[in-house]
Amino acid sequence: MSKKTKFNAAILIIGNEILSGRTQDTNTSTLAIWLNSLGVMVNEVRVIPDVEEIIVDTLNVLRKTNNYVFTTGGIGPTHDDITAKSVSKAFNLNYEIHKEAFKILESYYKPGEFNEGRQKMVWMPANAKLILNPTSGAPGFSVDNVFCLPGVPSILKSMLGGLKNNIVGGEPILSHTISLRTVESEIANSLSKVQSQNKDVEIGSYPFFHAGKLGVSIVLRSEIKSKIDICNLEILKFIKEKKIEIVDR
Amino acid sequence: MSKKTKFNAAILIIGNEILSGRTQDTNTSTLAIWLNSLGVMVNEVRVIPDVEEIIVDTLNVLRKTNNYVFTTGGIGPTHDDITAKSVSKAFNLNYEIHKEAFKILESYYKPGEFNEGRQKMVWMPANAKLILNPTSGAPGFSVDNVFCLPGVPSILKSMLGGLKNNIVGGEPILSHTISLRTVESEIANSLSKVQSQNKDVEIGSYPFFHAGKLGVSIVLRSEIKSKIDICNLEILKFIKEKKIEIVDR
Repeated sequence: MSKKTKFNAAILIIGNEILSGRTQDTNTSTLAIWLNSLGVMVNEVRVIPDVEEIIVDTLNVLRKTNNYVFTTGGIGPTHDDITAKSVSKAFNLNYEIHKEAFKILESYYKPGEFNEGRQKMVWMPANAKLILNPTSGAPGFSVDNVFCLPGVPSILKSMLGGLKNNIVGGEPILSHTISLRTVESEIANSLSKVQSQNKDVEIGSYPFFHAGKLGVSIVLRSEIKSKIDICNLEILKFIKEKKIEIVDR
Repeated sequence: MSKKTKFNAAILIIGNEILSGRTQDTNTSTLAIWLNSLGVMVNEVRVIPDVEEIIVDTLNVLRKTNNYVFTTGGIGPTHDDITAKSVSKAFNLNYEIHKEAFKILESYYKPGEFNEGRQKMVWMPANAKLILNPTSGAPGFSVDNVFCLPGVPSILKSMLGGLKNNIVGGEPILSHTISLRTVESEIANSLSKVQSQNKDVEIGSYPFFHAGKLGVSIVLRSEIKSKIDICNLEILKFIKEKKIEIVDR
């Protein structure tokens, strides 16, 4: 991790469906790429079950050790949606009807359709700020540095645009990838030397199989383009010496 | 979570590539489904960076609060592969050449190809037990209740078969899904009643979009089939009353 990063975040994925393996999480990747573009580095991701005590305890750890916490899941209308109640407990706030959210959903649904189940979605921590939902009406919310988003990936994605102005970050975290027709062990030593001489750049090495062939992607990450460029040149130099082919990937 | 579960596990995903959003984790789902079939429930997943201190600290928390910990990633030949060294530190064991692993890799590679980079993969915590790798030679390893697997999904999958006999679990965790052409708010109250009368069954409700239509999957999980059957009947009853269509999904 770069030592220059000043803004960090944790992602807290709330949901038994991820822990059971039934559903594959894709929100981490969406949130991480979006946060990196805003100059916020994701430090940690945790996936936890729909259990109030665990949500409260985990949230109270993460919100104190990170600039931002993003939760996904558990803000719908069913009995297993307990994120809003748990956030209220974590912050010691009343769990109550949010008047603005009530108005939004009342006008979103046809007369008579704003039933008891749907009304559960307007219960939030007192004075929560709403995160508008252009896809399906029901808003997310934030309290202090904790931002609560839904678990459905397409809805979550649609809500990020409206959230951007609430996130203060640093310089965007830049990334450059060099993909090679080689195996990791052929470049391990050379790459290690480049890393030891460029400690501010995070250098990752990731083997891949593609179209029946082995390869390695080297990923350079930093907020400072010139530092990435220097690393890139050093890597291109040893690649040339070793006569390793660069591939698209 | 069912209160009857006696065996639990944490998954520790080690890798900057997941935290940056570049790579989407799929190993959690693979491991969770496999563990559930062995009667082990996944309690928690954490994704952390390739930083020794963080790996050591996180491992020392998780291995004491779970029957099993499965790590993925960081056991290859490059500079960012620091899992084996970190596990050694966490257990206060020497980090040294594993003789059996050395023999395996020495005979796996052609003469002269077992280079310095590859030799890094035989450095492990003292007395680690090997987890054989039928795909690409380099073994994983376990120390006490911590099992270290590679990050590449296809290789990880190929190693689970050989690991099965090392995992003591309870009854397999069974799952039954009922998918409906409805929205969550239409069934929230009825489902909540079924859950309150069947506390031993984990009932999840998951909205989906498929082929342009909205739906909800209800997932029932328990080690005891008869308990799932009772819930299932109660749910089918209210579905019939509400005239909700059941769909394939």
